[in-house]
This record gives sequence, structure tokens and C-alpha cells, in this order.
Amino acid sequence: MGLELYLDLLSQPCRAVYIFAKKNSIPFQLRTVELLKGQHYTDSFAEVNPLRKVPALKDGDFTLAESVAILLYLSRKYKTPDHWYPQDLQAQARVDEYLSWQHTALRSCCTRAMWQKMMFPVFLGQPVPPETLANTLAELDRCLQLLEDKFLRDQAFLTGPQISVADLVAITELMHDPGLLVLAAKSSKADQSWLRGASVWRLQLGRSSSRRPMQLS
Amino acid sequence: MGLELYLDLLSQPCRAVYIFAKKNSIPFQLRTVELLKGQHYTDSFAEVNPLRKVPALKDGDFTLAESVAILLYLSRKYKTPDHWYPQDLQAQARVDEYLSWQHTALRSCCTRAMWQKMMFPVFLGQPVPPETLANTLAELDRCLQLLEDKFLRDQAFLTGPQISVADLVAITELMHDPGLLVLAAKSSKADQSWLRGASVWRLQLGRSSSRRPMQLS
Repeated sequence: MGLELYLDLLSQPCRAVYIFAKKNSIPFQLRTVELLKGQHYTDSFAEVNPLRKVPALKDGDFTLAESVAILLYLSRKYKTPDHWYPQDLQAQARVDEYLSWQHTALRSCCTRAMWQKMMFPVFLGQPVPPETLANTLAELDRCLQLLEDKFLRDQAFLTGPQISVADLVAITELMHDPGLLVLAAKSSKADQSWLRGASVWRLQLGRSSSRRPMQLS
Repeated sequence: MGLELYLDLLSQPCRAVYIFAKKNSIPFQLRTVELLKGQHYTDSFAEVNPLRKVPALKDGDFTLAESVAILLYLSRKYKTPDHWYPQDLQAQARVDEYLSWQHTALRSCCTRAMWQKMMFPVFLGQPVPPETLANTLAELDRCLQLLEDKFLRDQAFLTGPQISVADLVAITELMHDPGLLVLAAKSSKADQSWLRGASVWRLQLGRSSSRRPMQLS
């Protein structure tokens, strides 16, 4: 059995892995794990990933969890173009830095905002207190400012002049909820440029492997 | 100017970086950033790390944040022994998997437990509600179970037969608060073995670069 990817495309990290594999023509069997049906809690899935989370990878007898680890594994095994995870010491460290930061920053903020805006009202039958939501959105705003000041700066992409897995991880997070994208787009010109460019790039996935985001502003 | 490491050894990730650099005889200038004095909020430190967090690295004109990125950068630049961050595809992925998981699992749980047990009572002048603390410790317990079931299993170390940066990141987190270590030691025999061994190993730092934790049980 070749490479199997256990994904639910409702999940942002799953989409990052899926896009990366498709974009790089990596052959894989898609094993859909429906989160809304609780399929990640089944015993059979626990054999693939005892953490009971997607994405997960199975490559022969080898299993792997965590989207960041999966992206790096795929980039190395399939020798994807260097820009995704550069070999250059400093450029690679720049990508590692973003991949590490995002866990407790952008991903955490976006997830909380999405749950408070969209999920809790459905499950609880009423919106979360406005002050709670306002605090969460203010934190997300600070996080987006750091995304721009620390990472994007005056570059075309988050970690340098070319697209890397860091951009893929970031954009799947920001594009999960159109509301988050609108909030993000309220940031400065540079951020808007990256966001719009990344949106265009995402829509063009599969047309050209070397396509860079358009600079719209 | 050579390698500079901006650290406060009160911080667990700073200690992981410090131990790694010392253990591997990497020459560096220690730049102490005292968190309790708010030195990470100064403008001069923001030039090194706009995220205003330690650890941070400066290597000539190159600056880098995030402990995981710093550990990997040092392991690559100074070509440290392979076991710290193995070149083998699957062994490396196993380390990446742990380094990714710990951000939102062990580190998050330990930090919350420490703040609720030790810091909030000092700052607020009264303990946190017992139910809140109980929930946090129960979550930490689940996290330690995953540490054992998913990562440690029947191995000598978290990601395989030899020590890696994953063990360093984990043990500095668990040894931050003796109370957490006690809680962790309540887990199964395998976990106790790793914890005791890792404690011994930590005390022996600097005596032998190839020393493995003793198997005490």
C-alpha cells in the first residue's frame, strides 16, 4: 500500500496538506475521516493516530501525525521544489520559525474566533457575550499585526521572496472563515497585497506549479 | 560578533536552548533578558525579536525567534551529533511530530498548571477556584498519558532509541515545577523510567556527551 492521507477537508491543516500534495503531484490515497461524524474517535483511526486528530499519514507501516511534520516529511520524501522548504540554513530557519509560532498564535486565534463567531451560537443557541468576542477579535488583530511586522514585512511571501509551506499553513487558516479574511484585509497595504495575492494563487492551484501571487496593489 | 543567545533561564524553552548549546560545546554570548523586569518589552530587544519573547538568537545580522526553530538552526549549523535531530527521514519526522504536538499540548498544559498553582495565587492573593485547578490538572494528566501512549511507548526516549531535541523540550517543561514532575511520575512504569532517567541525565549534563538516561525500573 502506498501513501495514504487521512483528512477531513473541513479542517484547515488538512487542506494545507491536501493542497501541498496535489500541487506537487504526490500520489496518495485519500482516506476521508469525517470529523462531524466523530470518525476520528474510532478504534480503527486510533491505530493510525492515537492522538485522534487529522491530518494523519500512513506510508506503508509508518504512521505520522501533525500537519507540520507531515508537510516536512512529504517535502523531503518527494523532493519538492526547494522554495517550499528551502535547504539554505537561514531560509529554512525562517520557515521553521513561522511554523513554530503559528501553533500558539494565528492558528489558536483563528480557531477561537471561528468557534465564538460560528460554532458556539449553533451549539448553544445564542451568541457568545459581545465582550468575549470583542476580546478574541482584538487578540486576532494583534496577531495579524505581528504576522505583518515580524514575518511578511516588505516581502512577497511570509518567509522570503518565494512561497513556502508557511504561506500555505497561514492562508488555509485565514481563508477558513471569510470574516477572518475581511478582518485581515483591514490591515496595511502590504498585508492586503499578500492576502489578495494568496487568494488568487489559491484559486489558480493546479494551473502552474511556479505561479506566484499577483501583486494587486 | 559571533552567536548571541537572548535567554532568561527562568523560561523552560530558554533552558532547552541553553542546555543544547552547552552540551554541544557551541560557543555563544549569553544575553540575559530578565522577564520579571520586563526587559523583553524594551525597544532594543524588539530589534532582535519583534515578538518580544525569549529565547531569541542573533548570529551576525541574522535574528531568529522560537525555541524549536533555534534548536534546529543550531543543530544544522554546528552539525551536532545525529541523534539530536536525525537525518533519517522517518526518525526526523518523529522528532518533528513531537515538536509540533507539544506547542498546544504539553507546553500549553504545563504552563496553565504552573500559572494556576503558583503564579495566580501570588498575583491575585488567593488560590484559583479548586474546580478550575482540578480541570487543568486532569487535562495535564490526559496529556501525560498521550505523551506515553503516542510518543514514549516502549522506547528509551520520546522519539526513538536515542535522545533527541524532543526529550530536551519535554523534560525542561516537566521539570519546571516539581509538582508537575510528581504528577507525571504517577503514570506508568515506562513513563517513570523515562522521567527518572531524564532527571539523572539532566543532572549529569556536561559529564559525557553520549550518556543515556539510566533505566531505573
